[in-house]
Amino acid sequence: MNIALDMMGGDFAPLEAVKGLQLYLASNSGPATIFCIGDESLVQPLLEEYQINMSSVKVIHAPEVIGYHEPPTRALKEKPRSSIAVGFHLLSSGKVDAFLSAGNTGAMLVGTMYTIKTIEGVLRPTISTVVPKLNGNTGVLLDVGLNVDCKPEQLNQFAVLGSLYAQYIHNVDNPRVGLLNVGEEEGKGNSLAQTTYPLLKENSKVNFIGNIEGRDFFHDKVDVTVCDGFTGNVILKMAESFFDLAEHRNVSNDPYFHRFHYENYGGTPVLGVAKPVIIGHGISNDKAFKNMIITAEKMIECDLCNKIKESFVTA
Amino acid sequence: MNIALDMMGGDFAPLEAVKGLQLYLASNSGPATIFCIGDESLVQPLLEEYQINMSSVKVIHAPEVIGYHEPPTRALKEKPRSSIAVGFHLLSSGKVDAFLSAGNTGAMLVGTMYTIKTIEGVLRPTISTVVPKLNGNTGVLLDVGLNVDCKPEQLNQFAVLGSLYAQYIHNVDNPRVGLLNVGEEEGKGNSLAQTTYPLLKENSKVNFIGNIEGRDFFHDKVDVTVCDGFTGNVILKMAESFFDLAEHRNVSNDPYFHRFHYENYGGTPVLGVAKPVIIGHGISNDKAFKNMIITAEKMIECDLCNKIKESFVTA
Repeated sequence: MNIALDMMGGDFAPLEAVKGLQLYLASNSGPATIFCIGDESLVQPLLEEYQINMSSVKVIHAPEVIGYHEPPTRALKEKPRSSIAVGFHLLSSGKVDAFLSAGNTGAMLVGTMYTIKTIEGVLRPTISTVVPKLNGNTGVLLDVGLNVDCKPEQLNQFAVLGSLYAQYIHNVDNPRVGLLNVGEEEGKGNSLAQTTYPLLKENSKVNFIGNIEGRDFFHDKVDVTVCDGFTGNVILKMAESFFDLAEHRNVSNDPYFHRFHYENYGGTPVLGVAKPVIIGHGISNDKAFKNMIITAEKMIECDLCNKIKESFVTA
Repeated sequence: MNIALDMMGGDFAPLEAVKGLQLYLASNSGPATIFCIGDESLVQPLLEEYQINMSSVKVIHAPEVIGYHEPPTRALKEKPRSSIAVGFHLLSSGKVDAFLSAGNTGAMLVGTMYTIKTIEGVLRPTISTVVPKLNGNTGVLLDVGLNVDCKPEQLNQFAVLGSLYAQYIHNVDNPRVGLLNVGEEEGKGNSLAQTTYPLLKENSKVNFIGNIEGRDFFHDKVDVTVCDGFTGNVILKMAESFFDLAEHRNVSNDPYFHRFHYENYGGTPVLGVAKPVIIGHGISNDKAFKNMIITAEKMIECDLCNKIKESFVTA
């Protein structure tokens, strides 16, 4: 198993990526070989400093970096030797089985769309986030920003993609799906929600249990919450800000509020494309990098992309 | 000044309404006479028990009650002697200057639309909620559910209505308006946000400062946040659930988290209609009722509906 990790992505690159790699190797005897993509002159000394076991690691030199504010499409074209461009090249050519980066999100999305095929039958790939439930469980929310204008058919597919993710990555049996809405009853909602509801109800591939209101979001009523990417993105960023609020009020040590500390999360996979791509948060710390690698490992092990393919072939 | 209060609305009616009235009269030497609408046989004994000063109070007998789950339009038609129907009759006939209820929200909205005129020039009335900012200030969010499918022109008007509310009820000078969006830059967003942005930029009646992301929602970047009623309703209910989360984690005594205790709020006015109508939360407690009366008093005192009228006349 080969996993490509962009060492130059994230606000604290490449240090946190190296520290994350160290955490991963220390905690995990996983079979993965990590391809560390980045400027050799910066990455190599850190790997030595952090005494990384080089038997599980390969350094792939990429002298260019795509900055956070560069226009994605142009940057990818003009910087073929950037860590992101090199990562997608390795993934599309089959040299690695997954590619992870906490770099320029736009470039990661454009790279995914242009380099990695969308699975046949999938209308639009989607990105998701985890939802910390009050009872300790973890939910999935999607879409969180890749598709800000959605059609009902897309939301219906997000339900399938999110269910497969919850099942294979969060190990939830027969995940319950909810449609984010303004009321509980069928017929409630904006035109998108109203039209999506009957599709979900008829969808034999998902365990649809009905509408979910904002007030139920952190309760364990569903495992997968489906919404358009505009609403999802606003919610995701609000949830991220909870940890700030908790810090401001000196309760950030509370174990529940701590789960909103999105720096610790392992990034969001792009669901619906043929190979595992994971996009990390710009503020990813070592733990986030470690978790990104573990998520990638899980996605490869259970062959999630193939499970999605099969699900959409029989559509 | 005459204010009609539905004594039969809310989960704890009529007790909390009576207690709220007591709080109001004790704290406030306001000039208002409160018209208490409800079943006399239930209301009168409580008014006596709580030693309400009857010189500022009139009881208006309304023997019928519209329940929480009754279909609004039919209920209003079939129960002309219900507290809600009687309240709207008093308001539309000019016998009172404002009507407040924590009863069936749908019936309150239908009653408002059918009995109280929408101000000329206003495309659609809207409902708003308060946003507790981390620095102690209070923001306004609208729409929070009355208009789940919005046109850009509506959002542009919500900005005006929210600004007037922030100015006259929250006493904010030249309130800053933000458009809820998925990114900060102009051009970001779904098609609604993209089309609304230039309208707000050109709108000389509002102090538009740009897009606001979910992460900035509780920070004091703007005084008025504008969004469609679907997104706003999800956010409102999520924010309401914060207090639950805080209670579960035993930090609900924190003064900031306590501000999310929506039971304490004074309800949401329907903005854009010719007379003050305030809709309370079903779980309204005494403090909520007191605050509803105070908000109504402010709306009457500053003649908010007229201010809105003037603003739309010069459109």
